[in-house]
Amino acid sequence: MTTTLILGGARSGKSRFAENLVMASGLERHYLATGRAWDEEMQTRIAQHKADRGPSWTTHEEPLDLLGMLAALDGEGRIVLVDCLTLWVTNLMMGEREMAVEFSALANFLPGAKARLIFVSNEVGLGIVPDNRMARDFRDHAGQLHQIIAAKADEVYLIAAGLPLKMKG
Amino acid sequence: MTTTLILGGARSGKSRFAENLVMASGLERHYLATGRAWDEEMQTRIAQHKADRGPSWTTHEEPLDLLGMLAALDGEGRIVLVDCLTLWVTNLMMGEREMAVEFSALANFLPGAKARLIFVSNEVGLGIVPDNRMARDFRDHAGQLHQIIAAKADEVYLIAAGLPLKMKG
Amino acid sequence: MTTTLILGGARSGKSRFAENLVMASGLERHYLATGRAWDEEMQTRIAQHKADRGPSWTTHEEPLDLLGMLAALDGEGRIVLVDCLTLWVTNLMMGEREMAVEFSALANFLPGAKARLIFVSNEVGLGIVPDNRMARDFRDHAGQLHQIIAAKADEVYLIAAGLPLKMKG
Repeated sequence: MTTTLILGGARSGKSRFAENLVMASGLERHYLATGRAWDEEMQTRIAQHKADRGPSWTTHEEPLDLLGMLAALDGEGRIVLVDCLTLWVTNLMMGEREMAVEFSALANFLPGAKARLIFVSNEVGLGIVPDNRMARDFRDHAGQLHQIIAAKADEVYLIAAGLPLKMKG
Repeated sequence: MTTTLILGGARSGKSRFAENLVMASGLERHYLATGRAWDEEMQTRIAQHKADRGPSWTTHEEPLDLLGMLAALDGEGRIVLVDCLTLWVTNLMMGEREMAVEFSALANFLPGAKARLIFVSNEVGLGIVPDNRMARDFRDHAGQLHQIIAAKADEVYLIAAGLPLKMKG
Repeated sequence: MTTTLILGGARSGKSRFAENLVMASGLERHYLATGRAWDEEMQTRIAQHKADRGPSWTTHEEPLDLLGMLAALDGEGRIVLVDCLTLWVTNLMMGEREMAVEFSALANFLPGAKARLIFVSNEVGLGIVPDNRMARDFRDHAGQLHQIIAAKADEVYLIAAGLPLKMKG
């Protein structure tokens, strides 16, 4: 099935755009949250997003084993929205996982997936080089992952101010 | 009349692009500056920009009550360049205003405006998540405002290296 | 000959995209590195990139006198990839050079160049305003240079996730 990558900045409307694609698909709706509620700010955002989506969605939470969860959810007639890849990258870094291994395993899964997949991710590489090494590593990993997924994706969008620029597809 | 939103990064040429739209419009030119000259760096920039525009423009300064100023300036045959929304957001935060209220009041004004309106704003959401809470709040507010204005605007441009990408219109 | 400007974020695939343009050109390949290996992280990246390009390229290193090197390499049947402008800006700042003079000298060289020229540069202006003055100056200089080169270039691309958005040409 079709794989879509949706990139955008903070509060760009990328998740809303992704959710609209899911709503319009007519498929069984699954939301795969990669975020961990580290603090109150994050908890509030997660709860608000879940309430906004409403009861027609099944929500799953998986901070690390994204591929395992996608395999478990895979099936025709389904659409899975992964929100978001950048939080997954953060979790992999915290868990000291091997990025190249994780990224290529995910990429290899995509062409054979039966469900329609939509990945949302933050574009984080268009500001000044961060001072600290971990932030630099993070944006390198995120950029690398975006290139890998974009190469396999059928459609890629860049979102700004709620509006899509189609980059592929 | 037509409303245009022009987004871009620092020194992307977004203000120049906006000014060229104004020059080409044949309408009575108004420049609405939202910036406050907090320091010498800022004072120098403001004075330089005013000198660059020349005497065919009427310049207005309004850091907070953007809507009131737009209403006062509204009229057929006029074009108003608001530069920029991100400074207005900064001023609203400093003034502890209610963002959602301010943003929706501005959005509601747009469809009925008689003047042609051009809003310039900094896209600030495409870098690494800032360390401090105020900067995170700022980019959330800016992103939210951009979505709200873009939804009402007739045209939206993203500027990079002085070149426009048309996102709407 | 044609001049191309390729902008993109960190790990956006901009250098890879530029290298593919060079490979496809059929011209004599020159790589002009502006980067200085300040630390081990940088040394490792430079050596890796050189190994990735392979022996069909001639590599030149010039941190400051970019124009002199371009003039020395200029000639029909050649293609020169400059990677990257943002590192050159950094080196000019360290060397306390006069930016406006350097930038306009480079811009003036472009229309008469006999070699095909490809400039790669980091778009760094789409995040939050940096706290320190040097970083703000850096992104101002980079943005200014991008506008100047883009105005003279035949083609301008913005790269994200390895995918090009054509902005000019």
